[in-house]
Amino acid sequence: MNTPTADLQSLCHRLPPGRFHADAAYQAAFESDGLTAFRQRPLGVVIPECEQEVIEVIRWCYEQSVPFVARGSGTSLSGGSMPVADGIVISLNRLNKIIHVDPDNRIAVVQPGVINLHVSAAAARHGLYYAPDPSSQKICTIGGNIAFNSGGAHCLKYGMTSNHVIGMRVVTATGEIVNLGGPTLESIGPDGTGLFCGSEGLFGVALEITLRLLPKPECFHTVLVGYRSLRAAGDAVSAVIDSGLLPGAMEIMESLAIQAAEAATACGYPDGAAAVLIVELEGPREKIAAEQQQLDAVIAATDAFETVVAADDQQRAAIWAGRKSAFSAVGKLSPDFLVQDGVVPRKRLGEALERIEKLSLASGLRVANVFHAGDGNLHPLILFDDSIAGQLQQAEALAGKILMMCVEMGGSITGEHGVGIEKRDYLPEMYDVSTIELMHRLRAAFDPKTIANPGKMFPGADAPALLTHGLHPLEKAGVISRE
Amino acid sequence: MNTPTADLQSLCHRLPPGRFHADAAYQAAFESDGLTAFRQRPLGVVIPECEQEVIEVIRWCYEQSVPFVARGSGTSLSGGSMPVADGIVISLNRLNKIIHVDPDNRIAVVQPGVINLHVSAAAARHGLYYAPDPSSQKICTIGGNIAFNSGGAHCLKYGMTSNHVIGMRVVTATGEIVNLGGPTLESIGPDGTGLFCGSEGLFGVALEITLRLLPKPECFHTVLVGYRSLRAAGDAVSAVIDSGLLPGAMEIMESLAIQAAEAATACGYPDGAAAVLIVELEGPREKIAAEQQQLDAVIAATDAFETVVAADDQQRAAIWAGRKSAFSAVGKLSPDFLVQDGVVPRKRLGEALERIEKLSLASGLRVANVFHAGDGNLHPLILFDDSIAGQLQQAEALAGKILMMCVEMGGSITGEHGVGIEKRDYLPEMYDVSTIELMHRLRAAFDPKTIANPGKMFPGADAPALLTHGLHPLEKAGVISRE
Repeated sequence: MNTPTADLQSLCHRLPPGRFHADAAYQAAFESDGLTAFRQRPLGVVIPECEQEVIEVIRWCYEQSVPFVARGSGTSLSGGSMPVADGIVISLNRLNKIIHVDPDNRIAVVQPGVINLHVSAAAARHGLYYAPDPSSQKICTIGGNIAFNSGGAHCLKYGMTSNHVIGMRVVTATGEIVNLGGPTLESIGPDGTGLFCGSEGLFGVALEITLRLLPKPECFHTVLVGYRSLRAAGDAVSAVIDSGLLPGAMEIMESLAIQAAEAATACGYPDGAAAVLIVELEGPREKIAAEQQQLDAVIAATDAFETVVAADDQQRAAIWAGRKSAFSAVGKLSPDFLVQDGVVPRKRLGEALERIEKLSLASGLRVANVFHAGDGNLHPLILFDDSIAGQLQQAEALAGKILMMCVEMGGSITGEHGVGIEKRDYLPEMYDVSTIELMHRLRAAFDPKTIANPGKMFPGADAPALLTHGLHPLEKAGVISRE
Repeated sequence: MNTPTADLQSLCHRLPPGRFHADAAYQAAFESDGLTAFRQRPLGVVIPECEQEVIEVIRWCYEQSVPFVARGSGTSLSGGSMPVADGIVISLNRLNKIIHVDPDNRIAVVQPGVINLHVSAAAARHGLYYAPDPSSQKICTIGGNIAFNSGGAHCLKYGMTSNHVIGMRVVTATGEIVNLGGPTLESIGPDGTGLFCGSEGLFGVALEITLRLLPKPECFHTVLVGYRSLRAAGDAVSAVIDSGLLPGAMEIMESLAIQAAEAATACGYPDGAAAVLIVELEGPREKIAAEQQQLDAVIAATDAFETVVAADDQQRAAIWAGRKSAFSAVGKLSPDFLVQDGVVPRKRLGEALERIEKLSLASGLRVANVFHAGDGNLHPLILFDDSIAGQLQQAEALAGKILMMCVEMGGSITGEHGVGIEKRDYLPEMYDVSTIELMHRLRAAFDPKTIANPGKMFPGADAPALLTHGLHPLEKAGVISRE
């Protein structure tokens, strides 16, 4: 895989001028993603303007056995789009066309660099929207959402990205063009779109994607509830689910995250709450009117000390602004933090949070919990100071203990952020040897030379010089800031 | 692949006595499935009593390069479980244990030979049920549902089998044991369960399956509406969807199927209807009360000439009995029939049905249409008489024309019955060469020797002596009857 002699000239000749960049400024700009603790400069960066240019780059990589890492906006929190030292980064942001929106069949056909929220914006005039809503939806791309099978607050009701992609044209890592899925929700044969969603860039690049659109809910009923303990908030989640209601979203934030969000967005969260619960119902007006009464009764029977109902769109937006800004807001509490992502069985949420608190106390690092409570998907934010020697390692060790706890409780090492570079050593905690070998064989069906995003997802030796630590050079230079 | 010398003695030695059967009675009993126009006697039949025996048979098949076809109740309508001449049938009906039901996490863990409806029966005391409901749910098995990613009337709202399988332990065609998916809905890496669902037995055998359970709807609102034309019924479906309602099911039957169902089950369908539409709402009582008003208004604005609301569970059961018996009931109208399965975009249903009518007139064969209208999934039943020379071929030709029409209209050659043996020649109408080659490579990751259900799904030469036609020998002998 080491290709110091890669013939970059021949790559340039296959592309229009101005597409390939190997200067230090570009290398630095792409050396990291949302997991800034890890970074690596690539050989060079290609910024294609159209599908055919992507295909040309990948065919060149295949011929020359040069690894490539495709990326959208680089919001991966698991290092999934971190470059490879001897490889090419393919930045897909300019493949950002919404090719068409078909309201009759409720689909949108888009390029991979389209921003998640732009799909809903384009569908809005037909009364439709695209359901998966990662917190980064203002900036993350559909291609990245597919690579990591992204979720979001509303995946409780609507499922993950794989439930909303019905077909795609893909260029595999061999440079071949294949069509996965089809024009309808019913599938034929093994579900290739399902397989590709969550493949973390190891199979190839989706060039054109058919997304399912849903009718925009006629109305919302958004409730913010304050609790004196995390356990009480967790119990409320179980009570809502047990009542038979299926809210669009059910989110919990705990005190540290609440304070941070309040400071950042003045979202009006209840004072002195140990935890807030956000529950959102959505649907036709009559239906919500009925469900709302049911929800009110369930919440009234819990240990809530304050309940706020969003009276209008503005109040609803304020409640969500607090939640969606939580990650960046927590950044104000600490020079550095790791966003973790794990899953526990929903009924064991309270127990999991108590165990995380003990692990946090034992390690001496603070943890702020923000999570998709309805599906047991935890996002502990581990606060640390990278300028203190050893704290990053301590934070990573704590993150590892939390992941092992998730596995032991019958959960998973990732809910939606993916394995990437960060969690690859934990994959064998989830899967046995023969299952991981099968995954390698499936990967080989798309990428026999292991050139697509090598070193990610699987533990092992195929990660060429991936890890470097420390402040991002652009941060050191004061050019970018994580606040 | 031809193995006349397969050492069947060594197979018998690996199994307890009484598991392997090579006598003519067994060969005849397993020579066909729900697509009785095609049949083939296998070398022999293994009826394992436990998981380890299945693994032993498959390891023997792998060592000896002997093909095998795993089957449940043999209800495949595409010939998906038809034996291979020089192969072994593995009948999984005795692996029929529901291993456990976990109401807290809303999952059931089952063996592959468990009957679909038995899962809901076991979950009922916890107020839960298993959503996918193929018409054959009283007899078809979960293993078969997975192989063909089965749907059913309620997949409009709840999705196909792949949306309800969260994990499985699988023995691949190499005899290895792998674990696909995991204990939670969130997936890690490429979605192996999604890939396996719909693989039509070409990858191996699922030994233990974790299914998602849903809370039983508190109440139903089932409406039967009579129309004077198919087009009016199709328009009503669009009107319901456009109103924002998402019914649990929306089914249409046309006159020929209505008459047959009425004769078979006295289901009380409206006299003289060209089409009936069944719409079923389901959920919490207050919510349904609200939705019901909305649905009534939508239906009242259509060209319905009669609307019947099920007043109680018994009337609801009668409405569904008519629909679920339609396939077998149509059998009374004709000595033979082919059940077809295709998909068209929902908005083009009316057009599709008019074209089917023209194709039917041109061929001189009657067609009865029964379909999952909400998702554009057509089930034309083509009536013919196999005792008239050439009629089977004529019926197959008409079925082919209907499939080509579905593809041309932007739909699919199968909604839920699978490709099997019947439609393999049409696969290239849906997928290009490089996509089919990728499918072969994915299959090779599970089955490098092509011994698992060979000759199905893919066109080509790997189907050893698969096709024979004519009356089933047990029918000729008067032992079984298709009525």
